[in-house]
Amino acid sequence: MIPSHWYNIVPDLPTPPPPPLHPATRQPVGPEDLAPLFPMELIGQEVSQERFVAIPQEVLDVYRLWRPTPLLRARRLERALGTPARIYYKYEGGSPSGSHKPNTAVPQAYYNAREGVRGLTTETGAGQWGSALAFACAQFGLDCQVWMVRASYEHKPYRRSLMQVYGATVHASPSPVTMSGSKVLAGDPDSPGSLGIAISEAVEVAAAEAGTRYALGSVLNHVLMHQTVIGEEALGQLDEMPDVIIGCTGGGSNFAGLIFPFLREKLAGKIDPTLRAVEPVACPSFTRGRYAYDFGDTAGLTPLLKMHTLGHDFVPDPIHAGGLRYHGMSPLLSHLYELGMFEAVTKSQSESFEAGVRFARTEGIVPAPEPTHALAETIAEALRCKESGEDKVILTALCGHGHFDLGAYDRYLSGRMEDRTLPQERIDEALSELPG
Amino acid sequence: MIPSHWYNIVPDLPTPPPPPLHPATRQPVGPEDLAPLFPMELIGQEVSQERFVAIPQEVLDVYRLWRPTPLLRARRLERALGTPARIYYKYEGGSPSGSHKPNTAVPQAYYNAREGVRGLTTETGAGQWGSALAFACAQFGLDCQVWMVRASYEHKPYRRSLMQVYGATVHASPSPVTMSGSKVLAGDPDSPGSLGIAISEAVEVAAAEAGTRYALGSVLNHVLMHQTVIGEEALGQLDEMPDVIIGCTGGGSNFAGLIFPFLREKLAGKIDPTLRAVEPVACPSFTRGRYAYDFGDTAGLTPLLKMHTLGHDFVPDPIHAGGLRYHGMSPLLSHLYELGMFEAVTKSQSESFEAGVRFARTEGIVPAPEPTHALAETIAEALRCKESGEDKVILTALCGHGHFDLGAYDRYLSGRMEDRTLPQERIDEALSELPG
Repeated sequence: MIPSHWYNIVPDLPTPPPPPLHPATRQPVGPEDLAPLFPMELIGQEVSQERFVAIPQEVLDVYRLWRPTPLLRARRLERALGTPARIYYKYEGGSPSGSHKPNTAVPQAYYNAREGVRGLTTETGAGQWGSALAFACAQFGLDCQVWMVRASYEHKPYRRSLMQVYGATVHASPSPVTMSGSKVLAGDPDSPGSLGIAISEAVEVAAAEAGTRYALGSVLNHVLMHQTVIGEEALGQLDEMPDVIIGCTGGGSNFAGLIFPFLREKLAGKIDPTLRAVEPVACPSFTRGRYAYDFGDTAGLTPLLKMHTLGHDFVPDPIHAGGLRYHGMSPLLSHLYELGMFEAVTKSQSESFEAGVRFARTEGIVPAPEPTHALAETIAEALRCKESGEDKVILTALCGHGHFDLGAYDRYLSGRMEDRTLPQERIDEALSELPG
Repeated sequence: MIPSHWYNIVPDLPTPPPPPLHPATRQPVGPEDLAPLFPMELIGQEVSQERFVAIPQEVLDVYRLWRPTPLLRARRLERALGTPARIYYKYEGGSPSGSHKPNTAVPQAYYNAREGVRGLTTETGAGQWGSALAFACAQFGLDCQVWMVRASYEHKPYRRSLMQVYGATVHASPSPVTMSGSKVLAGDPDSPGSLGIAISEAVEVAAAEAGTRYALGSVLNHVLMHQTVIGEEALGQLDEMPDVIIGCTGGGSNFAGLIFPFLREKLAGKIDPTLRAVEPVACPSFTRGRYAYDFGDTAGLTPLLKMHTLGHDFVPDPIHAGGLRYHGMSPLLSHLYELGMFEAVTKSQSESFEAGVRFARTEGIVPAPEPTHALAETIAEALRCKESGEDKVILTALCGHGHFDLGAYDRYLSGRMEDRTLPQERIDEALSELPG
């Protein structure tokens, strides 16, 4: 059954997360600071102290297209591994754009439309968020402009076409239509772009155009809350409670959506699972970043967010898991990490694709590159269980299908994928540019 | 709920369909003729007089990955059209390979594995069937060799990669590894291939190699029967019975899978829907083909099948709906068409893509090029209802998603898609080569 409410974890925490700050005044930002970018309902959800927020009927009507999503046991993978562990996965790839992103794109488009907004702007890396928002905007009659990181725009034309089929306008970022983009292009006409630059462009246009607002696909509290439909459904679908829950993290919305409802039960003393985030070696915000106030974008147009960051100037190596290539991390998840509520590990690209192929051949679903990181850790955990003889229950989130990523699989299968290490100097250099 | 049985319509028909004939003797083929190609269980299902065949538990365990599939009402499309009609669609795109094809690939792989077969061969056009069989073979530990029409092999590398991720070996057809392929290549080294040639190659290898059998993704009775899970589920999911049921036809398995359970109820006098097949202008087997015995493949290696055919030498224009580019038609559906049990119409490629974009922007799902033909007719029917004021209930099958076909949508959106007519001489010429 589709949940009737989203779960807001903030009121259940022992201490609240540090607030976003205005970069000039260093004072907490208020609703008036955010009003040019977001509709009032979402600003309210961002700072809400309500534990549960009712999902509007209009949103449920669209969710019904692909929700509830299946919770499946990976019996063939278990057999192939010879593990006594029982592996469950929650599969979000059946959504119209093939990932978990529509879970928040739909309510965001809905609330904007209800408040009279005419169009939304956003950024996208590999294209999963952009296509989700394009889909959602089409449902509620909103214009949609997407700034797509140029490297992806050129190498992933199908994700671009998907947004266009939904009626969105797609700009290669950096683009000449914004000041932020023009400035980057002036310095480097061949810039491949980055998520941070694309955010600057989308925010700039939303702030300047009347009737236009901005939408973000991860990081913020309200986005994470919308994703809790994943964990709420999983809680209801499981016959046995997990000992370990594993999810990949880029901005954090997939992991948070999966774990928050389980964390609620854990904080209430009802269950006691180990929770574990998996990030790519190329972009290790939790494991090698600093917990500090930083900008969410490259140009410094966003409020300052207290988060695990590699520095807003950090440009991750071009791995195929575009959704995990973000210099920062959700402030809410960062706060929970500091409170010791979950662990974090890294996986290399090759380990992840190896897990993806193994999963596809046993379970039948080709995972997107992002969740292959979680699968690599899931397999590692299951193999540890094989050694120790423990029959742990493992739950992971398969947040999207890899039908748009077969070029990457082709690269892996033909032996043309290489792993790079991330030298400490690169992180130190980017962190030396932290504001204040 | 997933049905427990497949439905076999043959025993419910007033007259049985004409049998396949041996091309040399012109006598009906027997089990011994088919044994080199198919396992005994499927040969039995092909000629079964049982109305219902139990779905094995091992098959249900895999079906559970994506079944039951959603039956949805297209309310936003209805509103956009301003029609009093109520439009329902059954969506099969959530399967691991993104179409309805795994419904039969899974039982075919299962029965072969159970009878000790080590590997399967098959052909694929656009790649939907090949990737479904590659998925199914991986589930039951079978080798899988796919001959993929060269034009698709080169222009649709992602479908090829998908099969390889599942562990299949993919040959561009015509290939030098078979006699049929070599013969074609000798005449035309640059041959783009065709489905008929690819079938010849796959059949040749299956017949020659011990432990290897052949699998077909449409046309045959057992394949159509496996697809009846679509219609059985829809019957149970609908709150009101349809007045019109519309599906696209290539080899016929999607249309048959949808309509057979409804036709059973119609033959029993319980409901009276109009049933309508939609085929592409470029490959009009029902509407412009001849009902005659013909080969299923180009080289003439298959039994003779009584069917609506454009001639086994007919090579359809290269439309994007690769799954509808087959010169023949299911003999069982052809028989029903002759009995007057359903109608058939054609739709052009542009009309179909126009309907696909309209559907994507209102309903949110990007359809594969094949079901856009059915959607074009569904929209036409709904607009006729708008004129007449009739509030008909329309049901259609959305048999796959278009995530692998965005290059084609890109072509359509940028105005680079052109419609060709099909001159009568081309059909007459191909029909002049009918055997006997």
